[in-house]
Amino acid sequence: MKSELWYTEEYTEHIRFSYRVTDLLLRKQTSYQLLEILETPEFGRLMLLDGKVMVTQRDEHIYHEMLVHPAMLAHPKPEKVLVIGGGDGGSIREIVRHKDVKKAVLAEIDDEVIEASKRYFPKLTSGLSDPRVQLQIGDAAAFVADAVKFNEKYDICFIDCTDVAGPGPVDIASSLITDEFLDNINTLLSPNGIMVAQSETPVYSIDYLKRYVKRLSQRFTYVASYVIMVPSYAGLWSLTWASESVDPNTVISRKAPEGIRYFSPGIFKGALEMGKVQFWEKIV
Amino acid sequence: MKSELWYTEEYTEHIRFSYRVTDLLLRKQTSYQLLEILETPEFGRLMLLDGKVMVTQRDEHIYHEMLVHPAMLAHPKPEKVLVIGGGDGGSIREIVRHKDVKKAVLAEIDDEVIEASKRYFPKLTSGLSDPRVQLQIGDAAAFVADAVKFNEKYDICFIDCTDVAGPGPVDIASSLITDEFLDNINTLLSPNGIMVAQSETPVYSIDYLKRYVKRLSQRFTYVASYVIMVPSYAGLWSLTWASESVDPNTVISRKAPEGIRYFSPGIFKGALEMGKVQFWEKIV
Repeated sequence: MKSELWYTEEYTEHIRFSYRVTDLLLRKQTSYQLLEILETPEFGRLMLLDGKVMVTQRDEHIYHEMLVHPAMLAHPKPEKVLVIGGGDGGSIREIVRHKDVKKAVLAEIDDEVIEASKRYFPKLTSGLSDPRVQLQIGDAAAFVADAVKFNEKYDICFIDCTDVAGPGPVDIASSLITDEFLDNINTLLSPNGIMVAQSETPVYSIDYLKRYVKRLSQRFTYVASYVIMVPSYAGLWSLTWASESVDPNTVISRKAPEGIRYFSPGIFKGALEMGKVQFWEKIV
Repeated sequence: MKSELWYTEEYTEHIRFSYRVTDLLLRKQTSYQLLEILETPEFGRLMLLDGKVMVTQRDEHIYHEMLVHPAMLAHPKPEKVLVIGGGDGGSIREIVRHKDVKKAVLAEIDDEVIEASKRYFPKLTSGLSDPRVQLQIGDAAAFVADAVKFNEKYDICFIDCTDVAGPGPVDIASSLITDEFLDNINTLLSPNGIMVAQSETPVYSIDYLKRYVKRLSQRFTYVASYVIMVPSYAGLWSLTWASESVDPNTVISRKAPEGIRYFSPGIFKGALEMGKVQFWEKIV
């Protein structure tokens, strides 16, 4: 009889979520973080960074589709798109489904994440070979600051970073929530520009989400969180939209591209309803 | 140093959710089930039946408000209301907030659940002393069959029962999902009658939910699930609405009663969007 293996993620110091594990496929300390790939019966393969779930085969499509498609379909003509983080490739895969896109930049600090994803999650990285995609390996905050200096513009910017709220290490993504970074993103966006960022789970990180929404509201006209259901992300996760001119409540009338499995305008509408911060405050 | 205690609920044989426990307040085998009350730092007190979470102090209001108020506000004049299960008292507490109610019957098989709730969860049982409330201790399926025999009618019926899908024991509630029971509920409801049932988590029990919705659709004109966020119920839980004449998508225009902490028409609308079964099928 084989040993019984479990991987446990701590949502808070008092709450744990555990997956039965059938194999440890990779464990490697990169220059930036501990990278692990596990095999599980319920969620398929999991990628962990510093002990926290980044993607699972079962539900990664929900997160990536709900991060990418609302903004891509709300923007009149998204040609230049930037992904910050997102080294697993999932966001780029969804972005390149859109024919308007001329250039999609992936600004990822850790190229070993990209390489591991290519090997262990080939479905996630299928978009990386698209000729419109540019990899930008390095510090994304510095890349954004440089782009601002040279007056570059992007139509949409996705902040697809590792955790920025505890428990556990948050240092690697901490440069992506500074005032300077948010100001730079605001400057970087073209007139109809939109940013969408992962903004932690409202279940256990409502204080972070509230502060983040408040800070974005000081910089953008339209700010709204929407809550998506991702079983491996504490059940529910929030994404936050910010734009000077594009209201997320605008009806999305353009047709979604081929190949989408989960996203629909109806579920986005529901996610916006569920994303109103006051609902979550009442759970604490 | 005190021992470190954890209570773990199995969502499937491969997935576990664990709460740090600071005290075991009650452990008692009743005539029907094992009843336990735990103290936890993250969720306050928990009531377990046969090892599964029934209510927690932190999030019980979300479940009870979302179960009760949509139907109560959609029905033109809910005077007679039946709760099946619900021995913790939370559903009755929400029902008696409505002034139209003349009679609210709680059909609970296990009076020790009611007694324990009175002692350990006084906020849940505050409605049980309302003069409009009748306790009906015994087998709810037999009570419903008798009521049908005597041609009694109820305006709204809430099925607030223990788990009907595994893993773990489901026997105690199994009489509440038979064809005969569903037929009886249909007969029991008055012309504008509505039933709302807890219908398990779509995350891990989508097959159960699909079958249940299908079986109700064979009996009722309007059937819709809605998904609510309850951190201690696998993050998300489904409630299913069935009625011959009241569409859950009807705009709720009546004012909600005083004392509600979480429910709003907007969050119900979002919950209905999130409850469409096809979204959940795509997660499996």
